[in-house]
Amino acid sequence: MNTFGHLFRLTTFGESHGAAIGGIIDGCPSNLKLDFDFIDSELLRRKTAQSSTSSQRKEPDQIEWLSGLLDGVTLGTPIAFMVRNEDAKSADYEALKDVYRPSHADFTYEQKYGIRDWRGGGRASARTTLPIVVAGAIAKQILKGKGIQVAAKVTFMGDAEQARKEGDTVGGIVECRIVGVPAGLGEPMFGKFSAELAHAMFSLPAVKGFEIGDGFALAMMKGSEANDTFINKDAGLKDAGRETCPESRSLKSRVNITTVTNHSGGIQGGITNGNDVVFRVAFKPIPSIAKPQQTVNRAGETCTIAIEGRHDVCALPRAVVLVETLAALVTVDMEMMWR
Amino acid sequence: MNTFGHLFRLTTFGESHGAAIGGIIDGCPSNLKLDFDFIDSELLRRKTAQSSTSSQRKEPDQIEWLSGLLDGVTLGTPIAFMVRNEDAKSADYEALKDVYRPSHADFTYEQKYGIRDWRGGGRASARTTLPIVVAGAIAKQILKGKGIQVAAKVTFMGDAEQARKEGDTVGGIVECRIVGVPAGLGEPMFGKFSAELAHAMFSLPAVKGFEIGDGFALAMMKGSEANDTFINKDAGLKDAGRETCPESRSLKSRVNITTVTNHSGGIQGGITNGNDVVFRVAFKPIPSIAKPQQTVNRAGETCTIAIEGRHDVCALPRAVVLVETLAALVTVDMEMMWR
Amino acid sequence: MNTFGHLFRLTTFGESHGAAIGGIIDGCPSNLKLDFDFIDSELLRRKTAQSSTSSQRKEPDQIEWLSGLLDGVTLGTPIAFMVRNEDAKSADYEALKDVYRPSHADFTYEQKYGIRDWRGGGRASARTTLPIVVAGAIAKQILKGKGIQVAAKVTFMGDAEQARKEGDTVGGIVECRIVGVPAGLGEPMFGKFSAELAHAMFSLPAVKGFEIGDGFALAMMKGSEANDTFINKDAGLKDAGRETCPESRSLKSRVNITTVTNHSGGIQGGITNGNDVVFRVAFKPIPSIAKPQQTVNRAGETCTIAIEGRHDVCALPRAVVLVETLAALVTVDMEMMWR
Amino acid sequence: MNTFGHLFRLTTFGESHGAAIGGIIDGCPSNLKLDFDFIDSELLRRKTAQSSTSSQRKEPDQIEWLSGLLDGVTLGTPIAFMVRNEDAKSADYEALKDVYRPSHADFTYEQKYGIRDWRGGGRASARTTLPIVVAGAIAKQILKGKGIQVAAKVTFMGDAEQARKEGDTVGGIVECRIVGVPAGLGEPMFGKFSAELAHAMFSLPAVKGFEIGDGFALAMMKGSEANDTFINKDAGLKDAGRETCPESRSLKSRVNITTVTNHSGGIQGGITNGNDVVFRVAFKPIPSIAKPQQTVNRAGETCTIAIEGRHDVCALPRAVVLVETLAALVTVDMEMMWR
Repeated sequence: MNTFGHLFRLTTFGESHGAAIGGIIDGCPSNLKLDFDFIDSELLRRKTAQSSTSSQRKEPDQIEWLSGLLDGVTLGTPIAFMVRNEDAKSADYEALKDVYRPSHADFTYEQKYGIRDWRGGGRASARTTLPIVVAGAIAKQILKGKGIQVAAKVTFMGDAEQARKEGDTVGGIVECRIVGVPAGLGEPMFGKFSAELAHAMFSLPAVKGFEIGDGFALAMMKGSEANDTFINKDAGLKDAGRETCPESRSLKSRVNITTVTNHSGGIQGGITNGNDVVFRVAFKPIPSIAKPQQTVNRAGETCTIAIEGRHDVCALPRAVVLVETLAALVTVDMEMMWR
Repeated sequence: MNTFGHLFRLTTFGESHGAAIGGIIDGCPSNLKLDFDFIDSELLRRKTAQSSTSSQRKEPDQIEWLSGLLDGVTLGTPIAFMVRNEDAKSADYEALKDVYRPSHADFTYEQKYGIRDWRGGGRASARTTLPIVVAGAIAKQILKGKGIQVAAKVTFMGDAEQARKEGDTVGGIVECRIVGVPAGLGEPMFGKFSAELAHAMFSLPAVKGFEIGDGFALAMMKGSEANDTFINKDAGLKDAGRETCPESRSLKSRVNITTVTNHSGGIQGGITNGNDVVFRVAFKPIPSIAKPQQTVNRAGETCTIAIEGRHDVCALPRAVVLVETLAALVTVDMEMMWR
Repeated sequence: MNTFGHLFRLTTFGESHGAAIGGIIDGCPSNLKLDFDFIDSELLRRKTAQSSTSSQRKEPDQIEWLSGLLDGVTLGTPIAFMVRNEDAKSADYEALKDVYRPSHADFTYEQKYGIRDWRGGGRASARTTLPIVVAGAIAKQILKGKGIQVAAKVTFMGDAEQARKEGDTVGGIVECRIVGVPAGLGEPMFGKFSAELAHAMFSLPAVKGFEIGDGFALAMMKGSEANDTFINKDAGLKDAGRETCPESRSLKSRVNITTVTNHSGGIQGGITNGNDVVFRVAFKPIPSIAKPQQTVNRAGETCTIAIEGRHDVCALPRAVVLVETLAALVTVDMEMMWR
Repeated sequence: MNTFGHLFRLTTFGESHGAAIGGIIDGCPSNLKLDFDFIDSELLRRKTAQSSTSSQRKEPDQIEWLSGLLDGVTLGTPIAFMVRNEDAKSADYEALKDVYRPSHADFTYEQKYGIRDWRGGGRASARTTLPIVVAGAIAKQILKGKGIQVAAKVTFMGDAEQARKEGDTVGGIVECRIVGVPAGLGEPMFGKFSAELAHAMFSLPAVKGFEIGDGFALAMMKGSEANDTFINKDAGLKDAGRETCPESRSLKSRVNITTVTNHSGGIQGGITNGNDVVFRVAFKPIPSIAKPQQTVNRAGETCTIAIEGRHDVCALPRAVVLVETLAALVTVDMEMMWR
């Protein structure tokens, strides 16, 4: 279950303070000339220490490409890559070895595996999103060739600078838009475009909510308010009066249909309708806070921790590229599934 | 992509007005004596015509069990079942053959497949949720044997009776709680319990939002407010003062740990923590409204439709069992994945 | 694990004496007009009681199509079908309830599931190959549209009529040829065309050997004997003398290359080379023999059985269509995987 | 399709002369202390240059463990590893850039991908079996803990020393035996233990035949010769006379049943019966021969090549560990699938 996708598949590996972190992309089309500068620039967007809201860990994040390429061109074989973990200060975490940090994965990992890598959060660290960004950058490059673009932005973020002073953290919301998606992507029953996106977003650390189009607000609307009126783009919007719809079995050449509004977020019946795919993702605040918190240790003893280390105040600035990246992976995969 | 699950797998088939609707359950444990009365009672909860908010279609919904059973006991082989579609009035839909109903899947299916079954919504009809309920009822029976219960309820619904008068429809929100889940379920990277739940819920028709625990509200909280404090159930909640956490390598017998609050909705790092799993699902209003709406037909001609037929005013009452049912399927599957 | 295929997927269900036997085909292209007469004629080839070597069970084998079709045209949604088991004489098997027939699956099923359907062999019966033939007939129809044909024949069979007199059974070998396969099908590492074929053939009851091209005989050859010389079809076979191969970076239009011999059976490095795919399958004799045999029952008591019932003397005549059918399923699936 | 297995999954990467070769093991149980010496010794068995029949390439084959381990103990997270390709002499292959070596994968890869890595055979090189051996060594360690052992040997090999003198190569047959497998492993329909083994073996380069138990010889036997008589191990073999089998519904404690002969190779109905699993694999001769051969280049021009490079005369000696290794992977995976 460390593999994502059906035909364009990413398998990732790595713990925060292990030797390296990376992945294997299986199913990438052959004969694609990779744009390494673009991949690096995407990694930079994800990188720690980029802003005042982010943690102080400084990794050079130099990608080593291990396979699947000949002179920078994809061979159709698995593309393996890795980044070494060089600035890992495991000693910082020594004190946390036996204690369960509140709302972290320490306790649940230990329940699941009977062992956990306490160094830097192990496999549950946000550092494990790095290989996803690499794969997503390749996915974006493929999408660009098809005229599809993915762009996310922060639409809400708590007051980070105030939180930092208080030894606290904040969460927020990221909105993402996929432009240029053809109609017809997504599998109707258990592989809906919306379901694949939801699954993808909940694979990111700290995600607690996902909505597509008008999302939760739609639950408060009436059908007449929520429905998206279809129009013929070539004809433009005009009043139909009360004419009933005529039969039209013989399809005139190619009809150019879209919706006037986009409450549906570009997806109807689980399949893209050609309008922009729009969705929002809610991130909880980072659980590592400097403020003292009560918790228990492995022996069940109550105690107090103040998490020092190098931690972000808010994950949102770097979540933007993560959201885009997973949206790109889903879109490429669904496009390849499309027949 | 008509298969759901990894080890406990459901493959469904059927269109609204085709010969039958049904599914195959693969991976069900052997030697389970099925409680057919319970399965029927679950179907009854989903059934059309159950209340004043639902449509008038009346199906006897008699399940025929085709395989996988000997004297009502599971053999470990695939359990196939079907329900015939008897009350299908395709003629009602004749007028909709060439027109795209707003916010329905008519247009997107036709874009995807170049053909669509216009009779009663075809594969996009809510009738396709029937096999899911059958499988979910079996899943619930398995969970019951493990002390796990799934219960959902409507927490918000628009004003249905007013909407009916106006020829309109309403949406709403369903909240679901899984009680008794052991800690440790869910796969950390791309098979998080939360991601599997999100994927499952977005497989239901009309779902536009999903949140776990405090969900979108967490985006507005600070870390110190959002974090769930761990306690030792046996010791109870007590003030730790400012004691730092001692090392505790030698684990004392079995420690009984939980969280005081449950902002996380029972899931941390994608894995269950033993507390109740709590999530909410937003349903948009049913798009079939009697009120006249503007749209286009296959030839791109603008026109007006008023959808008559037999339709619900609100999907919420029957969505409750659907949400439970998919939650049960995810839980059984994750439980079987657990090692 | 009752599902076969990656993109063109067949899930089957049914026990020999259960209510029905059938399957769901997921991933069939839309807008395909099914040739039902052809499907029936394929079933007839598989049918019991067709010849003097086969058993006396007479099933009408009338297919009921349950979904995925509109006026006989595929919708792109799952195609479900079933055949009722009408001539099942379970009473014949009553005596075998507690005894393990030698080289049958009675013992192994019971070890695996702790329960088994003793009526007619249950899920291990050859009757379970019926849904495979239905799906294979559709696959063949798709392949025909691409100019690909699959044809098998019996190349060795024991002396059936003599065996019948002795209350014994015989086995044999089926050879299959896939003509018209384009070069490039098959995934190189763990989805080799040869590996997929091998997997498919071993899914048939009684299969104990599989070889591709010259198969086991290749183990006895030298490289110089086993290698297949490439030629340019347009140029024909000519003596190259001792000229070394020149560089030829700029590919001249479309070069038409094949091999003179076909020791490889059309597959090199796991991928088709455009020559005929040729393979052979070894079937053991049917284990149900009328001759008395020693065995044990569930209590571990030694005893003697003579299996009466209605059984074939040799599975070979009907194995031919089964081998073709699975070869067709593999070929369609690999063709759809090809990018 | 570079992933093998269902629950114990190996994804491999790497070309012969790329930067590195390796893999990711997903689904390995946690808390397993790896025996690195054993893994190295298995690699040594596979290693080039080990004997007079093998090629002269000398790789140190030093494994770098990248993730999934803490102090040599498995974490339950993906175990990634790699070996750098250090002794790659790509220049040797420069002359082969534009020519299709007979019975190699040069032509088929190029047909599939429109590009190929001509350096050392690229992804089709036998070097790509290295990661399989690493994973297999871990699988063997898991099996050992369950009392299961896998051992293969060469049962036929052509005259290698004579072939070397002639600039030729030879093939052969490897037989493998899995001892200690419990009854009940394997999924009956499309995941038969035999089918999974067949698939696994055909994933190895140069494999052209596979048979289980008496295999192709069974096609020539009668049922009475091929059937394996069941006996009660505790009672031993005794003559049942002509007693018919009594009903024995109430199972006496635990009955210890096996078969006297093992024509079936330990598998009946696709499921293990507790006897040794025995199978044979036919390897064709290595296609790289020093002897001049006629072929064509990419432009379709006929020419002659004599493959120099560093190549084995026979793959058999190192095929032994490969066969064992894949058998171990299948067994671990099927054991984990068993419920």
